[in-house]
Amino acid sequence: MSLKVPSIDRLAHELSKLPGIGAKTAQRLALGIIKKNEREVESLREALQDVKEKIRECDNCFCYTENPKECDFCLDPKRLDSPILCVVKSPTDIAKIESAGVFKGCYHVLHGCIAPLDGVGPEDLTLTELIKRVATLSKKGELIEVVVALDADMEGDTTSLYIKEILSDYEVSVTRLAHGVPMGSYIDFVDQRTLGRALENRVKL
Amino acid sequence: MSLKVPSIDRLAHELSKLPGIGAKTAQRLALGIIKKNEREVESLREALQDVKEKIRECDNCFCYTENPKECDFCLDPKRLDSPILCVVKSPTDIAKIESAGVFKGCYHVLHGCIAPLDGVGPEDLTLTELIKRVATLSKKGELIEVVVALDADMEGDTTSLYIKEILSDYEVSVTRLAHGVPMGSYIDFVDQRTLGRALENRVKL
Repeated sequence: MSLKVPSIDRLAHELSKLPGIGAKTAQRLALGIIKKNEREVESLREALQDVKEKIRECDNCFCYTENPKECDFCLDPKRLDSPILCVVKSPTDIAKIESAGVFKGCYHVLHGCIAPLDGVGPEDLTLTELIKRVATLSKKGELIEVVVALDADMEGDTTSLYIKEILSDYEVSVTRLAHGVPMGSYIDFVDQRTLGRALENRVKL
Repeated sequence: MSLKVPSIDRLAHELSKLPGIGAKTAQRLALGIIKKNEREVESLREALQDVKEKIRECDNCFCYTENPKECDFCLDPKRLDSPILCVVKSPTDIAKIESAGVFKGCYHVLHGCIAPLDGVGPEDLTLTELIKRVATLSKKGELIEVVVALDADMEGDTTSLYIKEILSDYEVSVTRLAHGVPMGSYIDFVDQRTLGRALENRVKL
């Protein structure tokens, strides 16, 4: 489904390379962009250039930042005082965890999970850097706990267990997120495995 | 939910202005763009500039084109021979109709429908130009029928009836798309009004 106008097709093709954008959505976006005025399209083009020029990974935790070396999380003295380090798959997860407003420590971004079927091994993640950080911090007595906050799927579980293994030589406790009934949900909607876990990990009222 | 990195937030904000893109999708797209290499992002930026520089509306039918005056549909001698003109709301609808492969005539893009609640009146559409085209073509005896292919909602129906009215002085028959049971669908899934129309407009086997 195309109007056969080359520049529209090209834009739709470029947009369809973005995550979660299929051919039909790309076509709709391209036609939406045509309706925008020149200033609006220029704004979008500038924002694209800007993000490409300014964004880099933090030297310490590998989250995205505009700072020359370390990100704002790693520079925050309050967070540096926290004895807990939170390991996540991607910077998006940090944004999500921050929106919960419960965790106030520093992060470590793996930029993926171990997924042998997709050809992603431990060496493709920032695990060596994680070990170095934990070694340094636990030596100084500044780190007590590493929370592994990964997805509750096979890749997430594998990676969590791998991290537990590689950190076993250091004096830190490795924890993971609790599994259970989502807040606001109904018992009837929860799958058996989740309900099983929720029962096993029941909490005193 | 944001990482509080200004250039990422700005890109997400620009992306959220596109049709059908909410704040969360925009954030996901922005983070997806960061993962692209520079050449890929430059490709997207070029495609955006290209579409803005090259695309204009056809002088005749108001479809999008890169041609200096008339679009490929209006320049196609086979289509010019067709005695049927198809009126659509937007260029997207042309792409959709073309994909059906049944209609081989010329189009006329209204760029909207009459929608008093949204402040869109007949004067905001390309209706004056439609009347001129129909007047010229019907005079020459080159046009017999105008198919109004608009959405089956209130705005579409209102606009269809309005077009029937303003073309009543010309010797053309004004038709609209058939309503009925969608192909591959089941009687049980079709709403009452559609089923009523399908019964009224039943066709001999």
